[in-house]
Amino acid sequence: ISFYLQDLFFPTPGVNVTTAIVLPGTNNATMFGMVAIIDDKLTEGPSIDSKLVGRAKGILAFDSISNISLLASITLELEGRDGNINLLGQNRALDPQREISIVGGSGEFRFVQGFATLRTHSLE
Amino acid sequence: ISFYLQDLFFPTPGVNVTTAIVLPGTNNATMFGMVAIIDDKLTEGPSIDSKLVGRAKGILAFDSISNISLLASITLELEGRDGNINLLGQNRALDPQREISIVGGSGEFRFVQGFATLRTHSLE
Amino acid sequence: ISFYLQDLFFPTPGVNVTTAIVLPGTNNATMFGMVAIIDDKLTEGPSIDSKLVGRAKGILAFDSISNISLLASITLELEGRDGNINLLGQNRALDPQREISIVGGSGEFRFVQGFATLRTHSLE
Repeated sequence: ISFYLQDLFFPTPGVNVTTAIVLPGTNNATMFGMVAIIDDKLTEGPSIDSKLVGRAKGILAFDSISNISLLASITLELEGRDGNINLLGQNRALDPQREISIVGGSGEFRFVQGFATLRTHSLE
Repeated sequence: ISFYLQDLFFPTPGVNVTTAIVLPGTNNATMFGMVAIIDDKLTEGPSIDSKLVGRAKGILAFDSISNISLLASITLELEGRDGNINLLGQNRALDPQREISIVGGSGEFRFVQGFATLRTHSLE
Repeated sequence: ISFYLQDLFFPTPGVNVTTAIVLPGTNNATMFGMVAIIDDKLTEGPSIDSKLVGRAKGILAFDSISNISLLASITLELEGRDGNINLLGQNRALDPQREISIVGGSGEFRFVQGFATLRTHSLE
């Protein structure tokens, strides 16, 4: 399964906000201490107007004082699928590729195991 | 194992508070962005005065902009048992039944795997 | 693998701060409701000046109204190792020994399973 995560961390006016920055953080450079809750679109292609294939919901906590890294506890909901996939792991946002463990699932994803591999398509 | 979770989200005066709403959220309808920490009673029957069988402790984060859904990271402590059970998953509060993955355990629950199935007995 | 976690919860002036208390909590005795984000040193020996062997990054939530217990969602990064280990569990800070489940890993820790056992060396 492959899709694009549309995380609008710094939303453009007029675009629906899907990220709530619930805590501001204590460090400007790495955003250490910042906590956000997301309900982001997953799309088939890189454009935000591309076909919606699901949503990623959960918490991101910036937990590094030396780089930009997020502890992500995220649930993936996929269109047309019953149940969801739970991910937990460290996401170093500036690394070209990262992996996050699948720690559980429900419904048809009950016995899912493995990893989600993240690549950054664009940061705007 | 079956029990009732006594979550006093909007506590009555005079009843011990076991939920701290640590962040208020940004969306009134779905409480998106709200974060609560709980230390709730688990009871044998539906009444809060029924026999205490354990406690559920952890974090609830409201992470949906379209329905009332909580990312729950919860530890169950059961009376008379050594160790506890860790649950992680998405809990759509208004669905009649949901399941949350068991992601780990300690003590006598070291090798536990599977699911907790949640049903809503009453919302007051 | 064995190491010492240098958690400077109440940092001394002049020492680098590696803990951000992002939410203050609602209960003075057990700190119920307090949330902290950490990026703590892991050292070879008990002294904070001992050799750095890695870091522990993540979230601690104080979720007990009856004792000092933290729901810990932590990533361990070890020096010279590619990838990291994800821990999730309840940490009763005053118990002499606790265990926290390993719920996932990445890189060379992809298929890691088991437990981290915590002992308190000193509380200052």
